[in-house]
Formats: sequence, structure tokens, C-alpha cells
Amino acid sequence: MSRGNPATGPHAPVNPALVFDMLQAHQRTAALKAAIDLDLFSAVGDGPGDIASIARHCSASERGIRILCDFLTINGILLKRENGSYRHTPTSAAFLDPRSPSCLASIAQFLGNPGNQEPFKNLAEIVRTGHTTLPGDGSVEPENPIWVQFAKSMAPMMAMVVGPLSEVVLNGRSGSIRVLDIAAGHGLFGIEIAKRNPEARVTGLDWAPVLAVALENARKAGVHSRYDTIPGSAFEVDFGGPYDVILLTNFLHHFDQDKCVTLLKKVHAALCPGGRAATLEFVPDEDRVSPPMSAGFAMTMLASTPSGDAYPLSVISAMYNYAGFSDVTAHPIPMSPQTVVMGRA
Amino acid sequence: MSRGNPATGPHAPVNPALVFDMLQAHQRTAALKAAIDLDLFSAVGDGPGDIASIARHCSASERGIRILCDFLTINGILLKRENGSYRHTPTSAAFLDPRSPSCLASIAQFLGNPGNQEPFKNLAEIVRTGHTTLPGDGSVEPENPIWVQFAKSMAPMMAMVVGPLSEVVLNGRSGSIRVLDIAAGHGLFGIEIAKRNPEARVTGLDWAPVLAVALENARKAGVHSRYDTIPGSAFEVDFGGPYDVILLTNFLHHFDQDKCVTLLKKVHAALCPGGRAATLEFVPDEDRVSPPMSAGFAMTMLASTPSGDAYPLSVISAMYNYAGFSDVTAHPIPMSPQTVVMGRA
Repeated sequence: MSRGNPATGPHAPVNPALVFDMLQAHQRTAALKAAIDLDLFSAVGDGPGDIASIARHCSASERGIRILCDFLTINGILLKRENGSYRHTPTSAAFLDPRSPSCLASIAQFLGNPGNQEPFKNLAEIVRTGHTTLPGDGSVEPENPIWVQFAKSMAPMMAMVVGPLSEVVLNGRSGSIRVLDIAAGHGLFGIEIAKRNPEARVTGLDWAPVLAVALENARKAGVHSRYDTIPGSAFEVDFGGPYDVILLTNFLHHFDQDKCVTLLKKVHAALCPGGRAATLEFVPDEDRVSPPMSAGFAMTMLASTPSGDAYPLSVISAMYNYAGFSDVTAHPIPMSPQTVVMGRA
Repeated sequence: MSRGNPATGPHAPVNPALVFDMLQAHQRTAALKAAIDLDLFSAVGDGPGDIASIARHCSASERGIRILCDFLTINGILLKRENGSYRHTPTSAAFLDPRSPSCLASIAQFLGNPGNQEPFKNLAEIVRTGHTTLPGDGSVEPENPIWVQFAKSMAPMMAMVVGPLSEVVLNGRSGSIRVLDIAAGHGLFGIEIAKRNPEARVTGLDWAPVLAVALENARKAGVHSRYDTIPGSAFEVDFGGPYDVILLTNFLHHFDQDKCVTLLKKVHAALCPGGRAATLEFVPDEDRVSPPMSAGFAMTMLASTPSGDAYPLSVISAMYNYAGFSDVTAHPIPMSPQTVVMGRA
């Protein structure tokens, strides 16, 4: 049996539109970014949704707004009424209207930054060499400023994940615990654990300018008196410890398996006996071509790092076990393409 | 009732992945272009399809090839076998393998040229002003060299259309006819009519460097002794005539309705009584948000022209009628997003 997209599998008819569509797919990214930049999703949520009102709100031409809103409708982002006006889909109301608490619009800034965009201009060269054409180690170059932007702009994307992740990690456990949050970024994962367990003490580890964002978030959440920091590289600094829990969220995928194992051994050594490591990852099925978002994430790693990847569970388990962990378990996060994988020291 | 993408309509559940996916859609364009540049589709068609063989053929890294082939599989362009090797889908065999007579790979050159790419970096500005940010009149600037590239690289995309179009236009008619092919480009539409009707005499009209491509194609088809040319702008040159048939393929969408009507009046005046004009267009439904490819084409016109559009049939009919035509009929082309719309002088 061959695997592949079911809509276009081995028995699907030939479809030249697929080729044309894929060569034009960049228009979709540009259209959604333009709509966010123009504050179009406020306009649609606010008013009657006719072209003239939206154009007025966005200080834009009616021709431009009409074609942009039609394009967003074609792509499932808006709905068009029979009278020609537009309204939110449940998805755009929840994730693109700036007044929604779950608005994701800020992720366009991180995903659209040059470090994430430039490599795709040289993708053939990247496939030839097997690693990013970005300077140095690309997105994992020490002190790369994109991680400050990540910490600031990707937080809403994590809002859906922090609750389920901390539930899996705490698993009903209360009482005094020490938590290390490696590559803390916005810090929200460790902060959520501190919020749920008033006796938890959390240490965030990241580049110093990134930790400033995490500390600000800890302050906002009222847990800063239990929030410590270790600035620097996870591969170089002393972790301290021992810890009951070590979080490794969205980190392993940047590195090759040897480097992941090196880090997991260091994590193992910093855990109490029976302590838990918890990674948050894009975990494709073993075929590495499904589900689409988790499997497709490997392309982002090819483009932006020297040797990162999206690892199937068999690979993550093998790395955990090789580093000394046992009882490896996977916990997919609902409504998210990501999975928590836990191991016991 | 609201219109929209059925998979994401008013009763669809909220789906944050849709936002993430659309902000990353540019990766698809880059991946397909990279695969074409690396000659990956020859490699897949030729050999056993394992990563090592493909990488050797493409002079590329195995990591890069594996991630690229997985990404193409996720997007329905390739199939992955259980042993991890790749093979063609019916679509990639027909439209991306360079040995296929219907290979479309060359369209990546036209769709990827700076005139088609640059505007999408300024799309918010284009929506604000309502017209392209390209210099002058963008893609319709006089003597724009992109039309030479169009004539050379988009010909395979037209191969599926030339047969059905000439059938609709000739409609069983034989005997001596004169045909004017406005914005002839590659010239293939007029050439096909000349091939099917040995008494047809065809005049191609386009910028002089573009006509060189059409003439070369006429020579290859053995119809050059019946192929004349008029170099220049369709809005300025004398059409001569009278003609029995005037073709206007992929031309009206570049202009606003007033300019289209001006041209259609000039076309009407150059036809014999009862003669036919035939436009080839992306014709969306009246809601302008379906079907996806025809409706979505308006975005390309917003980005690259001062005032072009994808016109529904009601608008094209109204323009035809206003210019003096009657008996307006629409003929969708099978396997193509395009429609022939005919009018009688």
C-alpha cells in the first residue's frame, strides 16, 4: 500500500490544478498577512461586513477589500453572505479577531520574520546541501534574536497547549516540586505549573533577552517570587537541580539525534530519581507523511536549521531510552498538532 | 445562506490549524519550485524511488531529499511506499515528469518571475491603493518582457485548452475563414485553428518580441504560410479585417470593464456580420468565491495590474452586449479552470 494524501492518492484522477495551485500557494500567506496588517478582522467583526464599511475601517480601496475578502472566503477564513457582505467563520472569530482572547494574529510576525522566510528563496540549495543557508547555525545560532520575537508573538499559539501540558506533567501531583523549563521562551509552560501548584518552584533557562519576556509573564501571573532563571545555552550551562520535572518544549526538533541524546543525558542527570522529562514536539506518524501539520514541520527544520527534524514517536522513544529514561509515554494535545512525550528518570 | 469553503463553512468547528497552515502556505510554492529545479520528478520516474537514488540523481543530500519528498507527499504530489521509497501520483507523472508530453514544469518559471512574485510582498499596500505596486501598469505595461516568458513557458498549460477551444470556435465550420488572435502569446490557439482548417488564415497580434515566439510555433506546426502578424497594442493598432473569428484569450481580465468594452467594440467593428468573438477567461460563479481557482484568480489581477479582475458570466455577457454582440454563450473547458465565452457580431 502506498501512503499519501487521500484526496490525491494512487487512484485519484490526474489533476493539473494541483500543480498550478501549489505554485500559487504563496499568495495565501501574503493574503492572510495583509488582512492582519490592515486590521481587516476587526472590521469584519465590528460592522455590517459590507465592502464599503470594511474599506473605510481599513483605510483601503473597495476593489482591494472585495478581492481580498473573496480570497479569504475561498480559503475558508471568512464567510460571504448572499448580499455580498462578509462575516467571521468560527475560526476567524476565535483566532483572527483581535478582540478574541485566543487571537493568533501575532504569530504572523514570527512566522513572517526574515529568518523564517529567507531560506525558502534558496530551498533547492538547502536540499542540495542538507542544511539551512541562513548564516551560522540559522535559527539555533547562539543568542539569535528571533527567540525574543518568538517569546513575544507565539504566546497565543501556546495558550491552547499550556493547560493540557501542565495537566499531563502534574498528573494530580501536589506538594513541593522543582521544575526546570529549558528553552523557556515566553515561559508560559513553567508559569502554568507554578499557577496550578503553589509549592512549585520554576527555573526558566534561555538566552538572557528571552528570559526578560518570561520574567515579565511570571510577574503578570503573580508567580515571579517562585521563578528563577538561568541565562545561556542548554548545552553549556550548569542546570543545578535536582529537579522533579524538566520541560523541553519545542526544542529537540532543532537538533540531530546525537545532539538530542547528549542533551537528554544531561537532563536525566539533573532529575531526581523517578523525576520526569516532558518534551513538546511535532510528532508525525511513523510514515512521516501524516498528519499533515506535524509531518510538514520537518520542512521548517530543513529550511532553518543545520540538522533539525520532526521525529516520529519511535525515534523520540529510542532517544529517551538511550539517554537512560524509562516509561516513555505520548500524550497528544487536543486541538493542537503537538504531542507531549514524557520519560521517567 | 452564507457561501464559503464547504470544509470550513459556518458550521465547521473552530480550527486554529487553518491559520497556521495559511501563514506557512508559501513553503508549498518553494517546495514545488525546488523539486522542479533539482529535476526530482525525473529521478522519481526513472529509478526505484529510494532516497539514496533520488539524492544521487539530484546531486543532493539525503536529508534534504527525504524531507522534500515527504513534504510533496503530504501535499498530494508524490506517493510514499511502505518501504519508504517514493513514486509518482498520476498527477506528477502527467504534469511534472519532464518526459511527459503534458509536463507543466515550465509554468513555474512564469509564475515565479519577479513580476508575479514581488507584488505579494506589498499586498497590504496594494489592497489600500487598489492597484499593483509594480512600476507603470504592472503586467500590462507596454512591451513588458514577461509576455515573452509567458509565451515560452505557459504553452504546456494551454495544451489542454487548445483542442476544446478550437472545437467550440470552429463548431464544425470548414471553408475559408480569417481569424485574428489578439494577445496571441505562444500563438497556439490560432495555430490550432489553422491546423484544423486548412483554409483558415490567422493573424497574431501581440508585442513584436512575443510574436517571434508565436511565429516559431507556427513554423513548427507547418502553418506559417497562413500566419500573419500585427505587432503592437490591441488598443492602438489597426486590426484590418474583416474577420470571421476574433480570439481574445486570457486578455480581458487584465483591464477594468470600461477598457474591456472599448476593446470589445473595436473587436465588433472588425468582425464580419455574424462573425464570432471568443474570449478565454477565468469565470467565477456569480458569488465570486467559487470555484476556487477561477475565483481566486482575481487576487493575481489585484496584485499585478491597475484594475484587472476575474469577471463572472453576468459581467462578461453585459460587456459583450453593451459592445453590440448577441447570442453570448459560455463553454467551460474540461480539466481546466477556464471557460470560453462567445458572442456574435
